[in-house]
Amino acid sequence: MLLIRQELGDVLRDFRQQRGHTLRKVAGDASVALGYLSEVERGQKEVSSEILGSVAEALEVPLSVIMGELSQRLAVLEGVESQLSPKVPDTVPTELVADYGSEYALRA
Amino acid sequence: MLLIRQELGDVLRDFRQQRGHTLRKVAGDASVALGYLSEVERGQKEVSSEILGSVAEALEVPLSVIMGELSQRLAVLEGVESQLSPKVPDTVPTELVADYGSEYALRA
Repeated sequence: MLLIRQELGDVLRDFRQQRGHTLRKVAGDASVALGYLSEVERGQKEVSSEILGSVAEALEVPLSVIMGELSQRLAVLEGVESQLSPKVPDTVPTELVADYGSEYALRA
Repeated sequence: MLLIRQELGDVLRDFRQQRGHTLRKVAGDASVALGYLSEVERGQKEVSSEILGSVAEALEVPLSVIMGELSQRLAVLEGVESQLSPKVPDTVPTELVADYGSEYALRA
């Protein structure tokens, strides 16, 4: 199962690095502990709505943009996931089974 | 500050109702307590990545679609929010200040 917090962590880290900000700066601006923000970025901690709002403000990225980026990355992963485990039926459709019936019947 | 959990709750409820599913059915399919799911839909409880994943599966809606819908609704609200509290500078730009200087000077 895809876990939102892992992708969200990547998105937050990427926006931070795009802006050239350190973890320390963003944690300070958002008033969250540096270690906690680091765990959030690594997808190890869930983030509350209030903290996500503060981090978004510190990054100066609207929440809609963060969620939009998250949505796009999830879509890619969902595509990959469905490629890795395609929904193939367990049984072989009859039209794909060669009809050896009459052949065997002839030899019998 | 916009709180993700409130918008996310609305999105989850709307997808559930679109499908004509009861809270009971989705809670059962996702193996979460009915009261908890109800609080999530009302934006009163945060949802973990695992539970959000289970609810998305129960609704048969990809996480990317849920996050995409969330992103769009947030964008609308962010637009409304910036309308309600536009970033107006505290000082009046000089070009908007009538020049009474010479008038007063004449009367003085």
